[in-house]
This record gives sequence, C-alpha cells and structure tokens, in this order.
Amino acid sequence: MKKSGKRTETDSFGTIDVDADCYWGAQTERSLHHFKIGNERMPVALIRAFGLQKCVAAKVNMSLGLLDDTLGQAIVQAATEVMEGRWTEHFPLVVWQTGSGTQTNMNANEVIANRAIEILGGELGTKKPVHPNNHVNMGQSSNDSFPTVMHIAAVQEVHDHLLPALQKLHSSLQSKSEEFASIVKIGRTHLQDATPLTLGQEFSGYVAQIELGIERVHKALPHLYALAQGGTAVGTGLNAHPRFAELFAQEIAKITGLPFKSAVNKFEALAAHDALVEFSGVLNVLAVSFMKIANDLRLLGSGPRCGIGEISLPENEPGSSIMPGKVNPTQAEAMTMVAAQVMGNHVTVSIAGSNGHFELNVFKPVIIYNVLQSVSLLADVAESFRIYCVEGIQANPDRIAKLLNESLMLVTALNSHIGYDNAAKIAQKAHAEGTSLKEAASMLGLVTAQQFDDWVKPEKMI
Amino acid sequence: MKKSGKRTETDSFGTIDVDADCYWGAQTERSLHHFKIGNERMPVALIRAFGLQKCVAAKVNMSLGLLDDTLGQAIVQAATEVMEGRWTEHFPLVVWQTGSGTQTNMNANEVIANRAIEILGGELGTKKPVHPNNHVNMGQSSNDSFPTVMHIAAVQEVHDHLLPALQKLHSSLQSKSEEFASIVKIGRTHLQDATPLTLGQEFSGYVAQIELGIERVHKALPHLYALAQGGTAVGTGLNAHPRFAELFAQEIAKITGLPFKSAVNKFEALAAHDALVEFSGVLNVLAVSFMKIANDLRLLGSGPRCGIGEISLPENEPGSSIMPGKVNPTQAEAMTMVAAQVMGNHVTVSIAGSNGHFELNVFKPVIIYNVLQSVSLLADVAESFRIYCVEGIQANPDRIAKLLNESLMLVTALNSHIGYDNAAKIAQKAHAEGTSLKEAASMLGLVTAQQFDDWVKPEKMI
Amino acid sequence: MKKSGKRTETDSFGTIDVDADCYWGAQTERSLHHFKIGNERMPVALIRAFGLQKCVAAKVNMSLGLLDDTLGQAIVQAATEVMEGRWTEHFPLVVWQTGSGTQTNMNANEVIANRAIEILGGELGTKKPVHPNNHVNMGQSSNDSFPTVMHIAAVQEVHDHLLPALQKLHSSLQSKSEEFASIVKIGRTHLQDATPLTLGQEFSGYVAQIELGIERVHKALPHLYALAQGGTAVGTGLNAHPRFAELFAQEIAKITGLPFKSAVNKFEALAAHDALVEFSGVLNVLAVSFMKIANDLRLLGSGPRCGIGEISLPENEPGSSIMPGKVNPTQAEAMTMVAAQVMGNHVTVSIAGSNGHFELNVFKPVIIYNVLQSVSLLADVAESFRIYCVEGIQANPDRIAKLLNESLMLVTALNSHIGYDNAAKIAQKAHAEGTSLKEAASMLGLVTAQQFDDWVKPEKMI
Amino acid sequence: MKKSGKRTETDSFGTIDVDADCYWGAQTERSLHHFKIGNERMPVALIRAFGLQKCVAAKVNMSLGLLDDTLGQAIVQAATEVMEGRWTEHFPLVVWQTGSGTQTNMNANEVIANRAIEILGGELGTKKPVHPNNHVNMGQSSNDSFPTVMHIAAVQEVHDHLLPALQKLHSSLQSKSEEFASIVKIGRTHLQDATPLTLGQEFSGYVAQIELGIERVHKALPHLYALAQGGTAVGTGLNAHPRFAELFAQEIAKITGLPFKSAVNKFEALAAHDALVEFSGVLNVLAVSFMKIANDLRLLGSGPRCGIGEISLPENEPGSSIMPGKVNPTQAEAMTMVAAQVMGNHVTVSIAGSNGHFELNVFKPVIIYNVLQSVSLLADVAESFRIYCVEGIQANPDRIAKLLNESLMLVTALNSHIGYDNAAKIAQKAHAEGTSLKEAASMLGLVTAQQFDDWVKPEKMI
Repeated sequence: MKKSGKRTETDSFGTIDVDADCYWGAQTERSLHHFKIGNERMPVALIRAFGLQKCVAAKVNMSLGLLDDTLGQAIVQAATEVMEGRWTEHFPLVVWQTGSGTQTNMNANEVIANRAIEILGGELGTKKPVHPNNHVNMGQSSNDSFPTVMHIAAVQEVHDHLLPALQKLHSSLQSKSEEFASIVKIGRTHLQDATPLTLGQEFSGYVAQIELGIERVHKALPHLYALAQGGTAVGTGLNAHPRFAELFAQEIAKITGLPFKSAVNKFEALAAHDALVEFSGVLNVLAVSFMKIANDLRLLGSGPRCGIGEISLPENEPGSSIMPGKVNPTQAEAMTMVAAQVMGNHVTVSIAGSNGHFELNVFKPVIIYNVLQSVSLLADVAESFRIYCVEGIQANPDRIAKLLNESLMLVTALNSHIGYDNAAKIAQKAHAEGTSLKEAASMLGLVTAQQFDDWVKPEKMI
Repeated sequence: MKKSGKRTETDSFGTIDVDADCYWGAQTERSLHHFKIGNERMPVALIRAFGLQKCVAAKVNMSLGLLDDTLGQAIVQAATEVMEGRWTEHFPLVVWQTGSGTQTNMNANEVIANRAIEILGGELGTKKPVHPNNHVNMGQSSNDSFPTVMHIAAVQEVHDHLLPALQKLHSSLQSKSEEFASIVKIGRTHLQDATPLTLGQEFSGYVAQIELGIERVHKALPHLYALAQGGTAVGTGLNAHPRFAELFAQEIAKITGLPFKSAVNKFEALAAHDALVEFSGVLNVLAVSFMKIANDLRLLGSGPRCGIGEISLPENEPGSSIMPGKVNPTQAEAMTMVAAQVMGNHVTVSIAGSNGHFELNVFKPVIIYNVLQSVSLLADVAESFRIYCVEGIQANPDRIAKLLNESLMLVTALNSHIGYDNAAKIAQKAHAEGTSLKEAASMLGLVTAQQFDDWVKPEKMI
Repeated sequence: MKKSGKRTETDSFGTIDVDADCYWGAQTERSLHHFKIGNERMPVALIRAFGLQKCVAAKVNMSLGLLDDTLGQAIVQAATEVMEGRWTEHFPLVVWQTGSGTQTNMNANEVIANRAIEILGGELGTKKPVHPNNHVNMGQSSNDSFPTVMHIAAVQEVHDHLLPALQKLHSSLQSKSEEFASIVKIGRTHLQDATPLTLGQEFSGYVAQIELGIERVHKALPHLYALAQGGTAVGTGLNAHPRFAELFAQEIAKITGLPFKSAVNKFEALAAHDALVEFSGVLNVLAVSFMKIANDLRLLGSGPRCGIGEISLPENEPGSSIMPGKVNPTQAEAMTMVAAQVMGNHVTVSIAGSNGHFELNVFKPVIIYNVLQSVSLLADVAESFRIYCVEGIQANPDRIAKLLNESLMLVTALNSHIGYDNAAKIAQKAHAEGTSLKEAASMLGLVTAQQFDDWVKPEKMI
Repeated sequence: MKKSGKRTETDSFGTIDVDADCYWGAQTERSLHHFKIGNERMPVALIRAFGLQKCVAAKVNMSLGLLDDTLGQAIVQAATEVMEGRWTEHFPLVVWQTGSGTQTNMNANEVIANRAIEILGGELGTKKPVHPNNHVNMGQSSNDSFPTVMHIAAVQEVHDHLLPALQKLHSSLQSKSEEFASIVKIGRTHLQDATPLTLGQEFSGYVAQIELGIERVHKALPHLYALAQGGTAVGTGLNAHPRFAELFAQEIAKITGLPFKSAVNKFEALAAHDALVEFSGVLNVLAVSFMKIANDLRLLGSGPRCGIGEISLPENEPGSSIMPGKVNPTQAEAMTMVAAQVMGNHVTVSIAGSNGHFELNVFKPVIIYNVLQSVSLLADVAESFRIYCVEGIQANPDRIAKLLNESLMLVTALNSHIGYDNAAKIAQKAHAEGTSLKEAASMLGLVTAQQFDDWVKPEKMI
C-alpha cells in the first residue's frame, strides 16, 4: 500500500515512492537518495536553459513528423514554464551527481513529462500519454543535451547579466576619468613617487581594462554558440534524425536572437569542454582586472589621515562609531573576494576540463556550476561596485596637490634651467632635511621663488 | 509614519526600516541593500559558531564582573539558540560583503540582542535593555571575533563530519583490502601490464592514502585551535579585559571538549590566515587522494566487456534501458568532481590569504566559505562513496585470472629454469602471434605444459 | 688599484668592478650581487627581443633627429647582434630581480653601449661615445620597454614555434583520423561500453581540439600586438618624442612582418598585463586539450594484453628487458607533465597579473618567464609527441573487432526485429553467463546465427 | 665503422653511438633523441641524491652477499662522486621525459657503471665488469628508486637551505621587532586608520608567520622521511631481497643523520605522491606569508613623500638618476614574484599528484622539479630579502609620529573625560575642517591644550 501523500514512479530499476506534490519522477528520486553531498543545487540558469532545450527539441521533433502534435504542444508548454522559472523548486538535485548530468537531464524530462500529462488531463507518474524518455527526450541523450544546455545557460547569463554590468561599469569609470581629467597628481611606480599624471589618466587605465575585458568576452562567445545537440550518446548522432542537429540550432538561434549553431565536431563537443575552459579563462582575466582596480581604489582612498587619501570612497555603512571619516572600502573588499573566487573557480574548471575520458567528459556539472557562479559573481559585483563605490568617488584635490607639491621628483623640471647637477643638489638637500624643493632651492640660492613657480609646473609633465 | 509590518532600527547612520518579524537590525539591513551579490549565504556552521562565540564572550564578561548578570543570562540563552540553529534564517547576509565579516558579526550581535530583549520582555529595535555593541559585542571586535569563529567552525566541522567520514571510508577500504587479499592480479605501471600483485595489495594503497590523510588533518588542527579572540581591533587587545583572551579560550575548550587555546600572537591571527591556508592544503591532499582512488576504481570497473572489468561497482541507478551491465561509476564521478572543486577552492583560499594588508586580512568571508565548502563536500562524498560504491565493490575473479594468465610478463618466472634468452623467445612468439605464453612455450618445445604450470605461479610473485 | 682582469664600471651609486671580458656594466653587476636567487635566467627569447627593441628605438631616434647617426648606427649594429643571439651569455641576470625588469633593461643598455663603443673604437666602461642611458635607452623607460619586449618575445615564439608545431600536430592527427576512418569500434562513455563509432571519428575529436586551439591562439594575438613603448615611466610618455610610440610600432611591424601597433592606452599597458593573462589562459586551454588527448591515447594503447589495446603506440626505447610488447607511453607522459606545468604556470601568471599597484605592475619578469616557458614546452612537446607518438600509432583491428563483437550494446540493433523485451532478455543472459550476444540469442532461440549476422552490423550504427 | 670521437653503447634495442667523453650510455642517449623538450634539466639536487641512493644500494647489496665486493666498492666510489657533484654534466636529461623518471635512473646507472668500469680499469660501454642494470640497479626498479630519491633530495634541500634561511629570516625580523618595540604608530585595518600599535608589534606578526612556517615544514618532514625503496616495480618488492628495504633506509638514515625510514605501504609510495603534495602545500603557505610580509614592507616604505613612508628600506641600487630618495623595494618585488611562482608550482604539483594510475604515478619528474624549484627559490629569496632588505630597514620616527598625531582615532582617549558625544564633535570638526584633533578641541573649547596632551597618549593604547 502506498504511503499517504506519496505517488509511485517507475524506471527500469522498478518502482519508488515520490511525494505526491512533486513533479519529478523515479530517476530524480533515486539521485536524491544516492547523492546527499553538499547543498549546491544545479544552477537556476541551467534549469531554465533546460526548459528552452526541451521546448525546442519538441518543436523540431514535431516539425520532422516524429512527435505527435498534441503531445508535442503539451511538452512545449510545460518546457516553456520550466524556462520561465515556474517549476524551479522541482529541480532538487545537487551538482555532485553523475558527471554527465544525466540525472538532471532526467529531472527535466520527468518534470516536463508529468506537467505535460497534467496539461493533457492524465495522471502523474503514469508516463501516459507523455513519456519522459520516448517523448520529452526524443532524439536526445544526456550526453549531448547537457553540454548544449551548459552553453546556452552560459551565453544567456553573459548577455543578460555580465555584459550589461561590464558596460555600465565601463561607462561609469569613463565618466570618472573625464571628471578627473584636469587633476594632476603624483604618479607611483614600485609604490614609489614617480612623475605625474592626471587622475583622469589613472582612471583611463581602468577604463581600458574593462573595455578590453568586454572585448575578450565577445571573442569567447563564438565557441560557446556551438551546440553539441544532435551528437546523442557518443557524438555519432545515433537515434537522432539526421536533420535534428541543424534544425535544433536554428530554432534556438531564432528564439534567443543569438547566433547559436550546431558544433562542427560533435565528438569534441561531448568529450571536451575546451570552450568553457577558454571562457573561464576570460572570466579569470576579468577577475585579475577587478583585483587591480579595486586594490588601487582602496589604496588611493586609504586614510583618511594616515594613508594616501587622494580620493574619497562613498560611505555606505558605519565604519566606526567613534571615528568620523573612517570609511571602509567594503565594495572593493567584496570585489577582491569575488576575484579570488573566480580565479580559484578557473582552476577547478581547468582541472575538470582536462580529465575527460574517450567519448565523454564527466565533469560537466562541476564545470557549469563554477562557470555560472563566476559569471554571476562578476556581474553582480560589477554592478554593486559601480553603484556603491565608483559613482560616488570624489577626488580630494587639496590632498592631491599637497602630495604633488611635496614630491621631490618635480625637480626634473629644473634640469633644463640650472643643469642636472644643481637640480640634484636641490633634491638631495630637500630629501635630507625634509623640506620642500622650493625651500631647498631658495636656501641654496640656485633658484628664486618666482623662478621655481614659473619653471616647476607639473601640469606640463603629463 | 512607519510602513505596516516594519520596525525601525537605528545605527550611527540613522534609522532604517526592517521587517517586523526579523530579529536583525540596521547594519544587517544596510548590508542587504549594498551587497546584492550572488546567493551564497554565510555558511550555517559559521553562524552556529557565532552563537557559541557570543555565548562564551557573555559568560566571560559576567565572570569578570563587566556584564550585568540579568543581561548576560539573556544573551547566553539567545546565543545558545543561535548555536543550536534556531535562528539561522535570520542571518541573510552573503559571503560577498565587507572582508572583515563585520556585517555578519553585527548580524549576530543584532539578532542576539533583539532575541535577548524579547526574552527580557523588551521591545525589538530599542537596544534596551540589551545593546548589540555594548553588551553582546562587549570586549570584542569583528576583527578578532570573525577569525575566532572561522577557526571554531572549521574545527567543529572537521570533528563532526570530516574525520568520522574519513575513518569510515578508511575502514571500509581496509575491509575490502582484506577481502581481496588472496586475489592475485596483473599489476599496471604506465598503464601497461607489469608484475602481479594482489587486489588486496592494490586496495592497501588506497587505505594508506586515507590513513595518511587522516594523520594530515590531525597535524593541521593545532594551528586551528589557536583563537584570535582578545586581539580586538588591531591585535593589541584595546578595550578588552586583560584576562579576556585566556578565559575565553578556556571556556570554549571546556564547552567543546577540544584543546582550543588563545593564539600566541594576535597580530598574526588577525592579519593573516596562514593556519587556514595550511588546512586548505591538507584538504587539497585529500582531494588529490580522492581523485586517484576514484579514477582507479572506475578504470578497474570499466567495461563490462570492453574495459578492464576486474571489479564490479554497485549499480545504484539505471545506466541504460537497453544494456544490462552498463553501470556508470556515478559515485566516482561525484568524488572526482568534488576533488576538482576542492583543488580550485584551495587556490582561492591561497590567493585570499596572500592579500592581507597591515593589521587585517580582509578576505575572511571568502576564505571560510571555501574552507567550509571543501570540508563539507569531502566529508559528504567520502560517506556517499563509501556507502554507495566501496561497500558494494565485488571482485571479478574470473576476469582477473583470465587477464593475469594471458599476460606476457609471467614469463619472468621461467628465467631461472630455461634462461633469459629462451624465456624471451617464448614471450616474443606469444606477443607476435597473439597466443598464450603456455601455447608459445609448447610450440617452441622449450617447456612442457606440466612444467609451465609448475613453474609459472603468479601467486609466488607478489 | 684595479684587480687584474677587471674593468671599472660606474653608475649613480659609484664605481664597481666587472670582469674585463664582460660587456655588461655597473647596474647588471649590482643585480648579480643582490639577487642570488635561483638559477632561472631571463629567457633567451626575451633577450633577443630586447635586441630588436633597442635596434628599432635607435632607428626611430635617428629618424627623429634625436640621435647622432654615427652613434645610432653603432647601436643598431650592436643591438642587431644581441637580437641574433651573439651576446646571450652577457645577460646573466635571473628572473628574480626587480619586478619592472629594470635591471635587464639596463643589462641590454649596458651590453649594447659597450659593444657599440667597441665598434666605434672606444674603451669599454667609459660610456663614451655611447652612453647606455642617454643613447641606447633614449626616449625609453624600463617601464615601457620591458612590457614591449614581453609582447614581442611572446608573439615571436608563438609564430616561430608554437603555431607551426600545433599545425603539424593537427595535420598529423588529421591523417590518422582519415587512416582510421573505416575502423568501427566500441564507444566509451563514463569509461563504460557504449554505442560504436569509428576510430577515425574518435581521432577527429582530437583534431577538432587542436584546430580550435590554433584559433584561440590567433584570437589572443591582437592584444599582444599592442605595444607599451612610448608610455615611458608612468604612461604619459614624458621624455619621449610625441611621435616615438607610433614610429616605433610601425618599424617593429615592418621588420617582423607582424601587425604590431602602439597600445591605445599606455597606462593600462604598464600597470596591467591582462593581455598576457589572457594569452596564458589560451595556453591553459591547450594544456587541457593535451591532457585529454594524451590520456586517451595511452589508455587506448594500454596493455598489451591486460588493457584496452585498441591501438599500438610506437616503441621508442626499451620498456622492459624481459617483456616484449611492454611499450611505455613515454611521449604521452611528457605531454601530460607539460600540461600540468602549463596549468600551474597559468596560476602564477594570473596571481602576478592581479597584483599590480597604481602605474606599474612589478611582476613582469615572473609573468614573461612563465608565459615563455609554457609556449616553449607546449611547442616542443607538440613536436615530440607528433614525431615520436602520433605518427607511429597503429590501429589493432583484430583487438578492436573482438571488443566490439563481445560488446553487449550491439543488442540495440535487434530491437526493431524482435522487440525491446526480447532483445533485453538476450543481453541479460549474455551478461549473466558471460557469453556473446550471438550465443545467448541462439540459446534462447530468438534469433538464428544468420539473422544475427544480418541484423547486427555495428558499421550501421556510426 | 664508428664515428671518430664516438663510443658504441648498447641496450635491448641495440647499439647507439655516444660521444666518447660522456659517461652515459644507450638509454640516456635515446632519451636525448626522443625528448627535445624545453631546457629544464633534472635538478642537481636530485642527481646528487641519486648518487647517495646508488651508493647505499650497493653497500646493502654487498652486506647481503648479493654483490661482489670489488664491483661494489667501485660502484660506491663512483656513486659517491656523483653525490659530490663531480659528474653532474653527465646528466643531460630534461624533466620532460618518461613520467617514472626511468631514463634518469638509467642515466645514473649508466654513468656510475661506466665510471666504476673506469675505476676498475675496464672499457667504457662494455658493461664489464660493472653492468648498469645487474649491478648498479641491483634489487631496484626506477619505480621505487626515483620516488626514494625525490624524498631524499627534498629533505636535504630543506635541511641544507630552506630551514637555515627561514631561521635566519625569523631571527632578523625578531631583532627588528625588538628594535622597534617602543615606536608607537597608527594601526591600519581595511587600509584605513585604526587604533595604534607599536611598530615592533606589527613586525611581531611577521615573526610569528615565519615561526609557524618553520613549524609547518617540520611537521611535513616525517612523511618525506618515508622511502619507497624496496617496493621495486609495483610495490611488492619482487626481485629485491626481503631485508633490502629496511637496510637501505637504515643506511640512508645513518649517512644523512636524518630519521629516514622505509615506507609502511610501498603501493602508496609508488602510486601516489601525497607526501610531496602535502609538502608543496606547506611551501604554498610560506609563499602566502612571504607575499603578505613583502607587500606590507613595501607599502610601509612607500614614498618617500607621497606614500606611507613609516620605514625606509635599504637602497641597494639606483632607483632613479634624478630623484634621491627614490628607493625601489626590489627585494620585496623578487620575494613576491617568488611567492607567485611557488603558488603556481603548487597547482602543478597538485594536478600531477592527482593523476596517477594504478600502481604508478607517472608525473614524478614534474613533481620533483617544481618542489625543488619552490624550495630553492623560497630559501634563496628568504636569504636575499633578509640581507638586502630586512636587516637594513630603518624606522622613520618623525613620520610615524606625525601620522599618529594627525590621526583622528586618538579621540577615543577623550571619551572617559568629556563623554562620547563631545569627543565625536571634536573628531567630526577635525575631519570636516582638516585640522588636528587638538586644534578642533581647542576651537570648540571642550579641552585645553594641556588637557589634550595629558589625556591623549597613544602609548597607553597599545
């Protein structure tokens, strides 16, 4: 007798009880039993991409006359709902399952089949009139569907989140670079005082890093547009209609408006994930750029009295109850932590990508989990950092001017007037006695105050 | 006018509305606004360790006469409830916040203060009679509390989950090693046939790896027992009672039954997380061991017909609906994916650990998030792999014997009877013609079948 | 009095003795004293690129009328000799020096100045008539010269070594794929027997990996063509002629025949090395591909009797003195070791790239050392692996056919003739009793031997 | 007819010509032909450890009566010469060879055999009276000898170089910590001004990091003392005398004075290198510590005018020809570059360690190459950094005092005298108007100058 509130589901291993209000079936339930590992569920973006993949597969199968239209339409509706995020809680499986992602592919097949059965007035768990394998998974294998969905999910997250966030960050840094275009400041190389530049020029370096980062993302996309679908179990396409691969890619391209295409070599597309390793490498460069930029900004904003203090970062939360002006660069801290995470995720992806065997790489879930986490964290932190840090940055012109004028390197400007040796004497005296260059110059009687002011103009040195 | 269902909370920045049914206060709420980054919440083990930390701090402050007993007892009760996991949903903050973890420390202070206020019959948000900073955080800073809690959480997860799982896996592999002690099989070096060993000896290598891994975990613990508490803001202990550090560590040791102690140098304990980088290195070795073991087992179990097939792994879920005997090594796949994750997490932890500045490392949340994820995944997968893979492994003695007997390397045993040159002739003939050694030996007339059987005994070669 | 065999060199710190037969000067000598760290010298490719950079700088300075033609021509000659590798042993400095590479830039300036002095009949160490700073380094700073040379060296190594080696490997794998086009074999997913494919199809996956890898290298080159030269100390170009940057890049492009150009943003070009981190990411993908391919080939070649044995790898050196047929896959081992090295080098490059401060990244030497090592190892191992492994690979058609025919998955072909249930019975019986499908089918009386042979044709399943 | 200047050597593949003045034989020569990959030769420390290993093996074989004393003594002499570094140039093989290191083991066997032949008056290449396999390699396999030598080399480098360098660095930092014990300075958390500490306390954190690092090295050694020797080809010890393993380890321990012992499980010792992955993890922690310390010191020494400037680093080489006081922190740069290298090497070692198959890990050369490079670089840079940076560090007490006194956080000291609210008013006014706390306090009339001086004493806050 069935337990109350339970429904019986079956697979080739036999029957298993499932909570009556769950849409998933036997294979999902078995995975829950055997993989009680961590609590990292398959990413939502992947689940939604599975909705799209199953929807398009059904459409193509109908168009090829392989799938009954009534069943096909119900699958399309159910899959669309999955794509829209309506059934996300019915995808309970963790990342740490079979390395082909078969159990999540079956989770999608089962949920969509049961929902389609429901739409058609049938009874959940009966596999009638819609069968998860025969109908929802028609012409597909986990081995081609899962990598297809990996690419779709990654591309969509890039277009929906990462690129917009990077473009806005770029634009925001660009505005700051323009705003600060006329503020001349001391340069620093080896962390030591060097020749001057403008604060705008300094920020232009960050602008360039993000701009090039956006370019890198765009350059990596073409390999992600290549879809494995149609390769089925080992890349030969056995059991799929000969036109399935092409039609599938065309339909995905049509729906998404993105230039997805069928992968030229399906054996590579199942057995390796080099395209995602490549893309993760691009995310790694973004992380490296973020680390540099956030580090610079928190150093420039260090102080308020005992650091560099050339800029002020916005104060978003109490730094200290007693010390006004103590602004912790918390957005920079979040950004550098994300950078460290993405750099480590990239190693995970690389190791996972290197360990395929023969016709299948079985590190698919861990690869896409890390790639999507990296994309999401980079996008979110770019947005947060832009809104709560970059846009509120203010230059401290007095502090900047003070440091610049105290600097000894401006002495370079005197070389052409009084000669290198005399200029060096001034610099050495100022350094030894802790005075300004102007004071040292006057004391040495080499330059008048007026001459000093006329000749030493940092704004000419940029 | 306050919004319906809202409560006003205050901090030094002013007031802010919080949902009336939340125990957290203003600083937590501000963090939610400013850090919409990812969905990785602070780990539950860390939140619970915060409960313990606040509980013990209150006890020590009472014992030093610094904290009123009524307030102190309410704090102890509230903190104990946090430790027991009762208020976990009131800790909504993500990992990607301020790098000192201040916002989560304040989250703990706020939740415990409000809950203690409730216990004492006060009104939430009034900070009366229990103030989150003055009472719950008394004698503490985020800068010493957060690293203290990092160590406590890591140690507890090790003792509660990782070590038991490793010990059970060790024991299970040990049983298999004993079970297979008399099964002589071909050895393989460079993936090429080599001299024989027993299947039990092969498994004994895995046993040794886990045994040494357990030793490594134990060796790393002493540095994790050292607690930063008492260093307060920069390591000097300003604002903490001179005896606070020692008494705190003693009380933690007493409650947990573990040899926690006060860190000898608090400056190091705040500014660096070398102890966690070290510990993450130990987890990395476990990951490396797991990768080797799981890879070996899935290779030994490959087939059923076209692989090595010396062992059979348990069949937990349908491999294929058509092909009986297709058992996918799904537990090994989960284990190797975990290994890749832990190896990448280790890089994240190392980068984060290397980037501290002056008196504070501000990558604390990302460090502990990765360490706790690694611990949890290793523990869970060790358990899952043991139950659903190792314990069900069966040797295939016929296959093992067939491979062993077909092997050419057994010819070595003839050297002492017919000389190296004649033995080599037999091996070469067998290799060239694809026959067995015995057949080749007979055909060459160098050895009789009886002599071959008498002299070539793999069980003597192990 | 000067030591015998010594010459006195001077810099702003004063005088220092140098071996009389060395061309380097004071700053190189000081670096030798202060950096006795490891024995990894600056890569030869970098030294030679420095020759090119100094040669072109002199030409541009002459064309701008800034550098006397007599001196300039001598510098051009001396620099060309450095480019040709004639003075490599006069570049004794190690990687572990100042992070701007200043000491190696000065090493180049000093060697070229002394050699030019010699050409012009002067006395070494006098800085007359050619001064290392004033003439050889004219209009340049280490801060823009070193990153310029990093890019030039990397690009040249790619064009001279990496791309040719990859193209030849691609072509060699392509030939093998064609050679094996008609050999049907068992497919393997999860390391378990799966549906068949041809050995040629399997190799086509490797071909595709290398082809895409070559594409990735090409995609990364444009960012490497961007040269920092002209940015001088902090990116503003102070002390360089306004047209220096453009003219320099044009001349480099002309000489090398490669589309080098002046970097759009010089601040980024000095302060970050994202382009090299990106490129290292591409090398990382190649490493990942190499690991997959080499692993597959050594597994396919495992045996000779107790492994998979579907292919034979060429035997280049004795495997074992007693066991003919023991061929260790040594080229695959070298390749996978290189892969591990490149993957680690990539982490080094990423960490180094993330740690710049303000106007200068001071991890330049370690970045280029790792990038050039990775390029060189990948190129060399691609070549070695191609010649000594890929080109000699032979298929073992008997073994392949035997495994394929023993496989149970061919039963799929009977589904349409006798139904799924009957086919499953055959497979189950064969698996349980260890017989062939054909035997099981006959025993069950479901299919005649003739029917079996007619219906079960693996070559139809690819 | 043999080429002039050539000698014929033979192995089981036949004859091959070798330069007459080389001691190596056929297998070394073949490796040179087949592995033209990179130019990273096997580390000298490894070659010398091979000398020790062969010497001890011969002694044990003589003591067991297996090896003729005349031959044995010649082998002992030749091997001792290898150990002493006399024949290092006769070890020309690169790291990128067979993954078992067999070719280098044979290189050692061949050189020692030929040298012993020479000692005994024989002819090189004849293998008479000393045979490289039968005599020099007696009772050994590459598979146990190479890992044995890996451990010996690593341990010896640790004892001879790493530990002494770390201890001296520790001691040097300790002296500085004591020297600076009474210099009160501003603390910095989140790079922002915080409560004070002494410069000595700040340095004590570095002292603690190195001290704990030394502890970590010591903790890792026991697993490195375990030697694989005696396991021979697959771990069973086939062909070695039953007492060989124990006697070998005892003799190694006796000669080195270090507690080497025979590994408990030889299967693990051949098939995995977890002990070296563990040890590499310890080196990784040292790298992380070095990164933190060197970063802090260059930030503290930044300036001279526009940075923090609390300390001066020694000036070892010209920073700039025009600007006295521009001291580039070049030793810190070398140290942080080494840190990045070691962190990347650790990833290489981890990946290599994870990829063993069955009875043998075949990433042995790349593992030991990286471990020895890391050890050597850490040791050398610790020494260089100590001598040329740490020992010359000078505090700048005026600058430190100025920053401390300008800091706003000293206002905390007024809380107990004039109340929190009034203290906050002073801090806010000082921050807003850019004045000192004392000036703000006077202007507000809340505290007299005398009171301020009496109450605000940073040295009480540490």
